[in-house]
Amino acid sequence: MLRGMVRIIGADDLTAIVNTGDDTVFHGLHVSPDLDTVTYTVAEAIDPERGWGLSGESWRAMEALGRYAPFGALTWFNLGDTDLATHLFRTDRLRQGAPLSTVTAEIAAAWALPLRVLPMTDDPVATMVTTADGEMAFQEYFVGRRHDIDVTAVRFEGASTARPAPGVLDAIASADAIVICPSNPVVSIGPVLAVPGVRDAVVAARERVVAVSPIVGGAALKGPADRMLRGLGVEVSAVGVASWYREIAAALVIDDADAALAPAIEALDMRCVVTDTIMRTAEIAAAVSSAALGAVGPRH
Amino acid sequence: MLRGMVRIIGADDLTAIVNTGDDTVFHGLHVSPDLDTVTYTVAEAIDPERGWGLSGESWRAMEALGRYAPFGALTWFNLGDTDLATHLFRTDRLRQGAPLSTVTAEIAAAWALPLRVLPMTDDPVATMVTTADGEMAFQEYFVGRRHDIDVTAVRFEGASTARPAPGVLDAIASADAIVICPSNPVVSIGPVLAVPGVRDAVVAARERVVAVSPIVGGAALKGPADRMLRGLGVEVSAVGVASWYREIAAALVIDDADAALAPAIEALDMRCVVTDTIMRTAEIAAAVSSAALGAVGPRH
Repeated sequence: MLRGMVRIIGADDLTAIVNTGDDTVFHGLHVSPDLDTVTYTVAEAIDPERGWGLSGESWRAMEALGRYAPFGALTWFNLGDTDLATHLFRTDRLRQGAPLSTVTAEIAAAWALPLRVLPMTDDPVATMVTTADGEMAFQEYFVGRRHDIDVTAVRFEGASTARPAPGVLDAIASADAIVICPSNPVVSIGPVLAVPGVRDAVVAARERVVAVSPIVGGAALKGPADRMLRGLGVEVSAVGVASWYREIAAALVIDDADAALAPAIEALDMRCVVTDTIMRTAEIAAAVSSAALGAVGPRH
Repeated sequence: MLRGMVRIIGADDLTAIVNTGDDTVFHGLHVSPDLDTVTYTVAEAIDPERGWGLSGESWRAMEALGRYAPFGALTWFNLGDTDLATHLFRTDRLRQGAPLSTVTAEIAAAWALPLRVLPMTDDPVATMVTTADGEMAFQEYFVGRRHDIDVTAVRFEGASTARPAPGVLDAIASADAIVICPSNPVVSIGPVLAVPGVRDAVVAARERVVAVSPIVGGAALKGPADRMLRGLGVEVSAVGVASWYREIAAALVIDDADAALAPAIEALDMRCVVTDTIMRTAEIAAAVSSAALGAVGPRH
């Protein structure tokens, strides 16, 4: 989706506000999975098969770490050798006292990204999920347990005292259009909205806000969004997504497969755009971006 | 030298007390160069050409870090991909609150080392050298400047309040023999002796202490020991080494090339053993070890 946005919006006009609730410290390194996925994806350096990390990656450091597994080294969270450079740089800069937003801008510049990337906050926020096996940190659920366990509750530790990163509220207030990408509504979009001030800013901008449904044909295209919504009592459909976002978004983009649901979505006081949302190519991603922008403003 | 000691001493009877004054944090990782060199060398995993790091190493993480150099990433201190695993493990364990001596024992066990390895202290000590370009941390001098600058003074920051690691004083007090390996007397042996209590313990054991001269034929076999001794006003010869160690050691092993210096060393109240000290093979290293042990005790 973001690659599609980059195709039709100039670098000076595009800002990505990114979830950091998945951030964690592994092997002493500060890892920001969502920021890195945005960076590597827009840089077209991401591994297309895995959907995370860098293409052409090697795993020698992690393989060598196996020697220390009997003494407590975690080996279930893989960091590739070239990906490690990003975590080493970020960890070092944070240790020097640089805020995450500054380091994020440096990493974006190092990859010559054609957009501005902002973490939702410079403060620590940790997404915690409650499962049948108790509460656990997000990466333990998502990677360690391969999200193969039901989630009954989600909370964002630290969010209540976190402040939006510099530029976040301004970007929302001044945007011609705000696009909620088809990420997991609960654990990818949810943490961003949980930072005090962000949700209010988005609500105030509702007429310019459009979401793209991550649920197509009653299932998530990838990841556990469908099971999570179900676990939280939300209908797993584009209508369920509409009910989830109706207070903050004026429009919803849904897939052709769900065209019959448009009237039910419009009944929730949302405009509905029906199009092909399966972003198999950059061209389709650009078309989805155009459709989304078209739903909330005359400019595009 | 240590490989030679391992050949003739059983695992339960051999303890290496290792300098940590070179320890530093690079890229957020706690690096212990001397501990790792001991571990990798005894494990016969060290790169024989470089003399540090692991053999068969790759450098993909460091190469990737070059992307972040314009934003302050240090690139002059190389950590290989498989070597990184050791630093990741150590950093993580220290962050969990484990003392360095515990982590060092775990790393030694992970490599199945046939001896006990102790850091000189669990507390932070930093070797600082004064040069024509001012004072700098040891690794900046040794690696960053390739020790190509004169040193006029050395101090061990933190040493005065450091405590010997658990087992260090006991090992010295109970040892049948204490061998000071032919490391740099100033910056490799010096920091160990600077930890309060260690020098006194060695002085008390002087009759059981033997040093092996790192100066052969008026020069260091490797590294800057010769230039450092000269900078500190010490004669660069086996006699100079004898004068440096005479208070703590009863015997000195010198090379055949320096045989003519034996009377001058004996005049300093030290026994002198002359042998081939150029340890080209493990057999020669074992012979040097036997010669050293023979100088201070009947047991070997």
